[in-house]
Amino acid sequence: MQTIEIKTVAGKRSKILTGENFINLQNYLPAQKAILIIDENIFDLYGGFFKNFQCIKIQASESNKTLKTVENIILKLIEFQVDRSAFIVGVGGGITCDIAGFTASVYMRGLPFGFISTSLLSQADASVGGKNGVNFCGFKNMIGTFNQPEFVICDTNMLDTLPQKEFLCGLSEIIKIALIKDVGMFKSIETKSNDILKRDKTVLQKLITKSIRHKAEIIGRDEFEKGERRILNFGHTLAHAIEANDNVSHGFAVSIGMMFAAKLSKHFGLISSDVIESMKHLFMRLGLPYYTDIDDELLSNAIIADKKKNDDEINFVLLDGIGRATEKNIKIDAFKTLISTFK
Amino acid sequence: MQTIEIKTVAGKRSKILTGENFINLQNYLPAQKAILIIDENIFDLYGGFFKNFQCIKIQASESNKTLKTVENIILKLIEFQVDRSAFIVGVGGGITCDIAGFTASVYMRGLPFGFISTSLLSQADASVGGKNGVNFCGFKNMIGTFNQPEFVICDTNMLDTLPQKEFLCGLSEIIKIALIKDVGMFKSIETKSNDILKRDKTVLQKLITKSIRHKAEIIGRDEFEKGERRILNFGHTLAHAIEANDNVSHGFAVSIGMMFAAKLSKHFGLISSDVIESMKHLFMRLGLPYYTDIDDELLSNAIIADKKKNDDEINFVLLDGIGRATEKNIKIDAFKTLISTFK
Repeated sequence: MQTIEIKTVAGKRSKILTGENFINLQNYLPAQKAILIIDENIFDLYGGFFKNFQCIKIQASESNKTLKTVENIILKLIEFQVDRSAFIVGVGGGITCDIAGFTASVYMRGLPFGFISTSLLSQADASVGGKNGVNFCGFKNMIGTFNQPEFVICDTNMLDTLPQKEFLCGLSEIIKIALIKDVGMFKSIETKSNDILKRDKTVLQKLITKSIRHKAEIIGRDEFEKGERRILNFGHTLAHAIEANDNVSHGFAVSIGMMFAAKLSKHFGLISSDVIESMKHLFMRLGLPYYTDIDDELLSNAIIADKKKNDDEINFVLLDGIGRATEKNIKIDAFKTLISTFK
Repeated sequence: MQTIEIKTVAGKRSKILTGENFINLQNYLPAQKAILIIDENIFDLYGGFFKNFQCIKIQASESNKTLKTVENIILKLIEFQVDRSAFIVGVGGGITCDIAGFTASVYMRGLPFGFISTSLLSQADASVGGKNGVNFCGFKNMIGTFNQPEFVICDTNMLDTLPQKEFLCGLSEIIKIALIKDVGMFKSIETKSNDILKRDKTVLQKLITKSIRHKAEIIGRDEFEKGERRILNFGHTLAHAIEANDNVSHGFAVSIGMMFAAKLSKHFGLISSDVIESMKHLFMRLGLPYYTDIDDELLSNAIIADKKKNDDEINFVLLDGIGRATEKNIKIDAFKTLISTFK
């Protein structure tokens, strides 16, 4: 097991525990009453353990990641007479942790909370950084807060029960971290792609820990996304626009978005076509999508409505080589052409 | 004009400006686009000035202080293409600032915000301390966050247009601060009650500034209500139960709640009946209610469901003399009798 400690600006401490076993949950809980907000699928798979806790089961889908779900959970919390002395644990993937983290952040103006991250995506990415929230009217994460969990248990064994599609989506975010921060990590993903697809625990735990360390370092320097943290949005501008228009998984939207951002990087003379080819080759081998058929107009409109824009420009994260990210403001007007050329 | 600076644990700074004129708003706004969330009554009274800004008008009532209202505001923010570079200003009394502060705290995971406080209650109390939120299923402020505004403009001139009932409600919270923190302030409210009722600006500005300074001091030491800050809930346990069962204004519920807490304090041997008499005399002179006819059972049930309880006990704020507050855990079982005796 490895522990990565994140110190937030507000002086809070968040511990990410990779390779920890979820059955040790009790060791991390304070004395207070604990309430679990748990993905119903995880409860079905591991309920033998979780039924010892007071559980609120939720259906963890993007379409269910809404204020309505938060309201339903709050109704249950009231019914269970949960007060400010309680502790919330989100158990599931990124969607569950996003919902649980947001609910914990606003119920009675905020209860302390922790996560058991059960998907590769949430272990490597979503549970780190204190972002939480729900979708609103087709816009991803339109309502949420920045608030760090007290702990995140990342149990590699739980990845065995993860559907293949979700596994690949997690890989997509791990590749993102490698592309923006760590050329060595990208190379090792390339050479170990077979072990990865076989879900080799040693290889996965290493990649998860590396991803978390890179992300934690960036966030430690920029908790509220004023500067450097924005590079974590690599691939995400187009990804969110894709998700707003199609029922595609986040990780798949991100792999398409990363390829688009890479092509833009080449267009602006930042990288050579070798990089594009390496990425395409790896994505194909792993089974990650790298282009979209969605209508250009729909994508442009969604991007304009998205939050990463700044007045008439969009702050876009590009690659300056594998392992090096850079930012560029691109005029909204120019975007429509860029999308139809490179999407 | 006086400036009270509050430094929060998260390292943010919040400035409360008493006696400032609202028409100087622009001086406090950053360069970003500003969006006003404004009480429709205030817009009607002072719209000549506010129509120069992009405004979202709301109906500021307890029954409208809901997630639904927050959702409607967010729909408008999306329609206005408000992004993370914008600045939100809440303009109105406590309800408006609570709604605006919460919306700003969760829209796109949080935009910076400030307030123009237009009521005596919000100037002296509600806008200080970073509490925001909305009601949910009959429970007051069940959903919210702790988040400080960057500034609060408290314009004493705006109090001229305040309905008498609202004015008295503000007085109630000012008296609360005096009762828990400042015997001299309580005496001066007693001696200057006529000037206060005539809304003498000099007297009011002094009282507002004193209230804010006391509250800011307490909050500076205990931003997240782990300890000392709880004394600010003096009178509020019963008040919230009253409000959950009756359409009574917050300040009136608080004056009743303070009288109840004072009687409990006497019951536990902490104060003499002289204190009760002084309070009763002052409340009568000012026109503040000091008892309720609501059914005991309804009040007990509402208190149990409220957030100030801690397992089977309720943390209750009592008086140890005028200007001195203390806390006592009272068993929930004992509460029903206490309510029927002292409410």
